[in-house]
Parts: sequence; structure tokens; C-alpha cells
Amino acid sequence: MVKRVAIVGAGVTGLASIKCCLEEGLKPTCFERSDDLGGLWRFTEHVEEGRASLYKSVVSNSCKEMSCYPDFPFPDDYPNYLPNSHFLDYLKMYANRFNLLECIKFKTKVCSVRKRPDFTATGQWEVVTLCEGKQESAIFDAVMVCTGFLTDPYLPLDCFPGINTFKGQYFHSREYKHPDIFRDKRVLVIGMGNSGTDIAVEASHLAKKVFLSTTGGAWVISRVFDSGYPWDMVFMTRFQNTFRNSLPTPIVNWLIARRMNGWFNHANYGLIPEDRVQLREPVLNDELPGRIITGKVLIKPSVKEVKENSVVFSNTPKEEPIDIIVFATGYTFAFPFLDETVVKVEDGQASLYKYIFPAHLPKPTLAIIGIIKPLGSLLPTGDIQARWAIQVLKGMIKLPPSSIMMEEVNERKKNKPSWFGLRYCRALQTDYITYVDELLTAINAKPNLFSLLLTDPRLALAIFFGPCTPYQFRLTGPGKWEGARNAIMTQWDRTFKATKTRIVQEPPSLFASLLKLFSFLALLVAIFLIFL
Amino acid sequence: MVKRVAIVGAGVTGLASIKCCLEEGLKPTCFERSDDLGGLWRFTEHVEEGRASLYKSVVSNSCKEMSCYPDFPFPDDYPNYLPNSHFLDYLKMYANRFNLLECIKFKTKVCSVRKRPDFTATGQWEVVTLCEGKQESAIFDAVMVCTGFLTDPYLPLDCFPGINTFKGQYFHSREYKHPDIFRDKRVLVIGMGNSGTDIAVEASHLAKKVFLSTTGGAWVISRVFDSGYPWDMVFMTRFQNTFRNSLPTPIVNWLIARRMNGWFNHANYGLIPEDRVQLREPVLNDELPGRIITGKVLIKPSVKEVKENSVVFSNTPKEEPIDIIVFATGYTFAFPFLDETVVKVEDGQASLYKYIFPAHLPKPTLAIIGIIKPLGSLLPTGDIQARWAIQVLKGMIKLPPSSIMMEEVNERKKNKPSWFGLRYCRALQTDYITYVDELLTAINAKPNLFSLLLTDPRLALAIFFGPCTPYQFRLTGPGKWEGARNAIMTQWDRTFKATKTRIVQEPPSLFASLLKLFSFLALLVAIFLIFL
Repeated sequence: MVKRVAIVGAGVTGLASIKCCLEEGLKPTCFERSDDLGGLWRFTEHVEEGRASLYKSVVSNSCKEMSCYPDFPFPDDYPNYLPNSHFLDYLKMYANRFNLLECIKFKTKVCSVRKRPDFTATGQWEVVTLCEGKQESAIFDAVMVCTGFLTDPYLPLDCFPGINTFKGQYFHSREYKHPDIFRDKRVLVIGMGNSGTDIAVEASHLAKKVFLSTTGGAWVISRVFDSGYPWDMVFMTRFQNTFRNSLPTPIVNWLIARRMNGWFNHANYGLIPEDRVQLREPVLNDELPGRIITGKVLIKPSVKEVKENSVVFSNTPKEEPIDIIVFATGYTFAFPFLDETVVKVEDGQASLYKYIFPAHLPKPTLAIIGIIKPLGSLLPTGDIQARWAIQVLKGMIKLPPSSIMMEEVNERKKNKPSWFGLRYCRALQTDYITYVDELLTAINAKPNLFSLLLTDPRLALAIFFGPCTPYQFRLTGPGKWEGARNAIMTQWDRTFKATKTRIVQEPPSLFASLLKLFSFLALLVAIFLIFL
Repeated sequence: MVKRVAIVGAGVTGLASIKCCLEEGLKPTCFERSDDLGGLWRFTEHVEEGRASLYKSVVSNSCKEMSCYPDFPFPDDYPNYLPNSHFLDYLKMYANRFNLLECIKFKTKVCSVRKRPDFTATGQWEVVTLCEGKQESAIFDAVMVCTGFLTDPYLPLDCFPGINTFKGQYFHSREYKHPDIFRDKRVLVIGMGNSGTDIAVEASHLAKKVFLSTTGGAWVISRVFDSGYPWDMVFMTRFQNTFRNSLPTPIVNWLIARRMNGWFNHANYGLIPEDRVQLREPVLNDELPGRIITGKVLIKPSVKEVKENSVVFSNTPKEEPIDIIVFATGYTFAFPFLDETVVKVEDGQASLYKYIFPAHLPKPTLAIIGIIKPLGSLLPTGDIQARWAIQVLKGMIKLPPSSIMMEEVNERKKNKPSWFGLRYCRALQTDYITYVDELLTAINAKPNLFSLLLTDPRLALAIFFGPCTPYQFRLTGPGKWEGARNAIMTQWDRTFKATKTRIVQEPPSLFASLLKLFSFLALLVAIFLIFL
């Protein structure tokens, strides 16, 4: 029986893992290299080795109702999309609420995690740590690796002929903190992921000129989605997911393209994706089209050549003078404390069953949490990954034989990363609701919509047609949260509380009422005709 | 016969007036107080007395195809919405192209414009100017006043009890130049016109907290309109104008509200206008909802009381600590060089026939150009105002008797300005296309759509269904421009040139073609059914 669990990293998935261990009666010890929790979400003015690095202005891409831990909603007066300082405060509240701090050893770097000699029998690991110059070693029954995938910058300089002759400044987006460095400069940002786009937009408020170079283009969507609702609360519903998954791919792609072009026609703005099938990784940005239409950001194709003080793009021989190049070319990931026989990362991919367990280990006692990029938040995903993984660690769930796990992994690997692009994206990306449901089903925690429809129809409708908020994942099964139903029924209240800060009495309008009545009648007629 | 025309001010309307005088064979002399042309559009780091003052980041609200002089399109690589420096460059190109500079006396302030003793017979004016300490006087046959309405800030401090005890900094938006002053401060912006909204959004990138207080709310629209087309090219078409003007007001208001709420629901964002009829003055901002949903800007109702270091809003007794208050409360206008018997400004209104001629003068030899706020650009409006006014000055068009002119003016005055609001707005605002057409008809320069439909149907369709671009105003009649037709037929090319800076080959999609075919068939069926 697994008892002692080593957890590497006290970021969002590390915290979830500690909490899930505690609620399942395990003894977690979390090793955090830095002096505080929060991982990615703890902004510092300087880049720290081995820890993800944010720029000052980062705001979450997933709204507060969609990106909370399933049993811990954000305070209702928090903004819908969270500036990083709010996010960090929330993580601290979570850690305090569930007494996680006492399980965390700060300033403790994990040097190595090695199989014990009797591993095939016990599944145990030897974890060597370094804390203030002092090395220690301890035996653990299981290990949960929660180090994330945003620490190792991917900087493919070879793809940019002439970069060595460039006399301006260049750096990876990881180094970026504040826009002041761009004041009155001519800036080129390479790569159109979320960071690249954010940086280009932010630079455009100060810089003399900003180019954003993208080979593949991207669909750009705004947090302010249809009628101003948070994009993920509209887009990520079980209803829409079922709808999308039941139509043929070309129709889905066409429908999504139509929808993406509703805000602005991506071809007219130079952003149209080359590969229209690349639908899973839209870029979230509220300002980009506004910056393009005012000429503050210029979209460019790939870079053909870098010269001393300028850059040539692939569509024209004209040289554009450039002072600063930012490589927003993404990240790769690695586990320096694990040897390659445990996990091997190749081409930004690791052979992990369900994105979690190394497929070839004789004992499933090492889980990797959060090496996944769902089109959704990592907090609930990490939480459910940890819950499932802990059931495996405890032996409550048996994994299939290695060969079957490898099959699943290899299937996924076919979905190869593109030329240079944002390296990790495709290999790690998955359909949020489908993936979560798989894990929920395995631990018997997926709400049964059919029986709910009979016992609690309001809740059933909210779950199916409403946003797929994380509370759904703790409605039932192991780790059930009593507050889940109420949290679901009040999710829109918390959403509006943050923005409806000036209220005007709606005048009773006879005309609008008539129109509503008329629409309702029309709807009835339509339904009648359909079923005729 | 009028020969010598004094023009006061070398801003956008002053330049148009000079040019229109020249093309009608008059002798214009333009007096410009500052040392360069451009008026409003010439950004300076310091506020200059008697001249409108911009902040550094101002971008035009009207796109380049809609806001050019009717016979002088913007260069095709200019952005669709123009940063002020581009706008100024354009004005200089215009002045050079038509040799306007030689008519302008810079650094020359107009001290007074007085009727000559024989005014009732000659209509002449004595214009006294001051240039580098030297006063001069000259006689003119006519005067065109082109000083604009954005020079005299309206600062209603009486409406803010306690403002005198406030220990922080406060100023009118006119004083605002750069956002750096807001760094890490708690900022309150009062007034939700274009400037107030721009300033709040800009402050929110640096400030600790930003409140935007609005009593009346507003419809906010983005330059990036339906499918990303420039808002005014979609919204301002003769077709839509005819449609809007032919429906009953409640239906139009309802339709517009629906459309305005399509981007985001204004009630959920605290912005819903109190007076839903106030439709003519939407606020143009591309970023506001994105700043609200991320909690960077908080919308508040009116200010109840100002305290030493805080402000109380009218919806809650809670005090909000504030360091800086910006009064974006708009402008009033005045003509200090004219005595009140010529034009009297009361409550932000002047008795001007067609917004141009003082209704009670015995001789119509003084025209005021650009004291109007059309939902459209001031460049084409100023141009057509000047063309019409010059026909009046030349005696080619007779004005109606004073009593009839006063009737028109009084009708307009009923549309009273609101409590404090943006003072000038309502009194000066008018329906762009309707107003321009009135003046065009008077000088026989309105294109005849019916005859065009027979002789040049492509052009007729572009004029009726396409954006009402200024080139239409110089297609025919006095001041006809030979390039007008071509400019109309290429207006979309110039629009896309600026943003379509990365081009991807569209893959031929059988599915999309089929869908198009299907839509077309459905359309045919629908038309058939309608006419059945």
C-alpha cells in the first residue's frame, strides 16, 4: 500500500496533488525549489532558473469559473479573467484552506529520482534533494512530478539564417518582463502563440513599429466572446462538445472557421491559419485586430533572413529595419532529475499513458501531472489527473498491459509537431471535456446526466447546456464536494458580479415584450413544423 | 462679388475652406495662430492656448476611406484608422498638393472680426490680427471661421461636492498627454466620451486601479466591426441610412440596441445607456470590454462626493481611495474674436442655419465651418460645408429669410444637452448622410442614383449599398473630381492593403463551394416566396 508520496513542484498541479493525496489518506511531501508556492503564477522581476517566467501583464486565458479548483471557487468580486497577482492570491488561499503548506519543503531542489534496487517488487523510489547546500535522500512509495512544461525555452536559432550577424538585441519571450524596453524601437516578435501575441500588442503601445511574424497563422479569439460572455463559458459546454464530436470533421472545421471569422475575417487581417485543421490551439487576445486596423501591429509571414540591422520577410525582398527581436517560439520540457529509462522526452513528446504514466514501467508508481495542454484550464485538469493517478498509485485502478498503453501513446504521437511552431502544443493538446470525462469515468466520478434529469432536472440542464465548470467534476464519486451543486447554480452570478458594477433600471418596453412574445411564438411554430 | 475671404484657423476645416475658395476663384487668406497647420491633429508635448490638445496615442475614429478629403484619398499603405502623426502627414500632403501653404499666415492670431460700418450694404468685415507683436487690420468680403469646438474645456466642478478638499491631483482630459503619470496610481476618469474611455483604458495598463465613472452610460462600439470591417464602412451606407430612416424610432432603437449588444451585453458590463434613445453618439473603443472583463477598468455610476483621498460613488457608501481624477467632461466652444451680435453661444449652442450661417445677419458673409459633430468624419463634412457656404458667399445660393432660418435653428435647440454629460455633443450632432445630402442637393452635386443605375449600374450599387465614402460628394456638380469614380471602385482595395500583409493561398474547398451554392439556391427560393 502506497503511503509516502514525493511531489515535485508546488505550482498549480503540485498543490492539487498534495490536496488529493491528503484527501485519500496518503502522506505527501512536496519539494519546491523556490522559496514560495505558485510556480508559473508567481511573477518575479527576474527570471529564475528552473521555474516558468511570466511577464508583468499576464492575465489568465481561462475565466475564473472555468479555471478554479473544482471544490474552491474564486471569490465573487475577482475579475473574470485573472491578472497573475490575483491568481497567486487565490493559490495561497487554497493552500491555506486545505493546510497544504505544512507538506511543502521550500528551497529544496530535487536532484534525482531513482528506482530503488527492489523496484520491481516494491515500486519504491529514492529521492535525493538539496536544501541550502545540504543533500538528503529519502525513500518514497510513489512520486508525482508536477514541474510543468514552461521552463525550458525552445529557441530554434538555426531556422533564422543570419541571426548571428544581427546587431540589435534578441531574446526568448521567457526573458520578457515589461514593455518599457520597446519604447521607440522597431520590434519584431516571432511566433504567434499567446505570449508572442501579448508581447506584440503590448509593445505596440510604446514602440515605433511592431511586426508580428507567423508562418502558420492562427485563429485569434477574444475573451469577450458572443454577447460579451467569457469565451470559455460559451465554447466549452457538453452540448457543444457533443455537437462538435458528432459532426464530420470538414463540417466542424467549416463551422469553427465561420465562427472564428465572425469577430474579424482572418484572411483580411493576415492571420488566416495555413492549416485550417489546426483548431485546437486558438490564440486568446482581446486587442490584436484593433492594433492591426490602427496600423500599430503589422502581421508578417516567416523570416527569410536576418541582417545586421534589419530583417527580410519571405513575401518581399524589402528589408525592414529592426532593433529588437523577440523569439516567442515556445517551450520544450525535460525532467533533469529523472533518468531516461524512466521518462524520455523526444521531439517534445514523452511516452505517457493518458498523459500521466510512463507506459513501460513495471510498477505504475510515478505519475507526471500537468504535461498536457487542454483547451481549458490546467487547475481542474491537474486536479482530476491527480485524483485518477492517486487511485492508480493506491492500486484501486489497474492500468492495462504495457503494450496497450504504448499503443495509445503511439497513436497520439502521429499528431506530429509542426516545423518549428510552438513546439509542445500539438503533441500535448487534447480535447478538454473528452479527456476529463475519461478520467472521471475511470474513478466513477462522472455525473450521470440521465439519472440527474429525473432527480434534479435543473442541475442536469445546467451541466449539459451550461459551461462545463470544474464543480461538475466533484459532484459525485471519490472526492465529492458538497458545495458543488450550489457552485454550479450560482456560477453566472459570480461572473456578472465582477463586471456589472453600474446598474441601470431597465425601462419596461412594450415593444420589446411584444417582440419576445413574437419570437416565442415563432419558435413554437418552428418546433411544430420540424416535428410535423 | 465676394473676392477676399479671411479664414480663421488652418486645421482640417480651414484647409478645406482655403482649397474650396481657390477652386471657386476667390482669394483666401488664412490666419493660423500657431506656427504650423493641422489644428487638432498636430500633437505637441505641451498644451497650447487656443488650440485643441491631443494625447499621444490618439487614433482617428473614422477610417481612412471615410475620413479623407473627397478628392484626395489617403495613401493605400496607411493604416485604416490613423494615428495622429499619419493624419498630420496627410494634411501636409494635401496642403502641398493644392498649394494651400501660400495662403496661410502662421503665428497670426485673429484679435477681432467686426462688421464694417457699411456692412448692410457691402457685407464686409474688418479683421484685426496680431503677428509677432504687430497688429494689423484688413478688410475682407467674407469670413470663414474654422476654429473648431475642442479648444475650451468644460469643467463642471460645481457638480462634484468636496472636490476642493481633494488632496490628490485632478485635471481636465485636455491636459492629458502620456499614461506614465498613472503608474501605480488609483485613477478615476469621469465622463465616458471617446477621450474619457481612451484615457481609462490607457491608464489601466499602468495604474494600480482604474475607475471609469459614467452617469448616462454609452453604447461602445469597436473600430473592428462585423467580420472585422471598419465600423463606419459597414454602418454608414445609404442603404442602411434609408432603412433606419424609414422605420419607426422604437424599432430602430431596438435594432440598434441589439446590434450594439452583439459585441457585448452593455448591461452586464455596467455600460448600458440610461437613455436608450441616445444612439447617435456611440463611443469608439476597441479595448474597453477586454479591460473590464480582466478587471483592469471598473465601471462606476456618478460621483456622489469627493473626499480628501477618496471618492464615494452613488451606488454604495463605500469610499474608494483615489490618487488622480481626470475630468473627461468635454468641451464648450466660443468665438472670442466675434462680438455677441454676430454669434452668441449659449448652453453650448449657437444660432447657426445649417450649422453654418448666423441666422440673423443681414448679409450672409460670415460662415462657421466645422461646428458640428456628425457621426462621421469632419474632413468631408467640412469640405462640403465650405463648398456650400462659398456658393452662398458668392451669391449663387440665396438663404431663406431670417425667420425661416431661426425656425430651423430653434427646432434643433429642443434637442437639449444633458445634465453635465459631454456638453456639446447633442446640440451639434447630426445625421451625417442626411446632412451632407442636404448641402449637396443645394449645390447640385448629389449623384442621381436613378440615372446612374441606367448609365453605370456598378457605380450606382457601390454608392447605394457600399460605404458612403467622401468621393461620392465630388462625383458631379461644382468641384467635381475626375478621379472620384475610380476612388469609389477601389476603396476596398485600399482598405485591405493596409491589413492583408500576410497572404495564404486559400485551399479550394469542395465543401465550401457546395455550401455557397446551397445558400444561393436558398436565397433564390426565399426571394421567390417573398414575391409569391
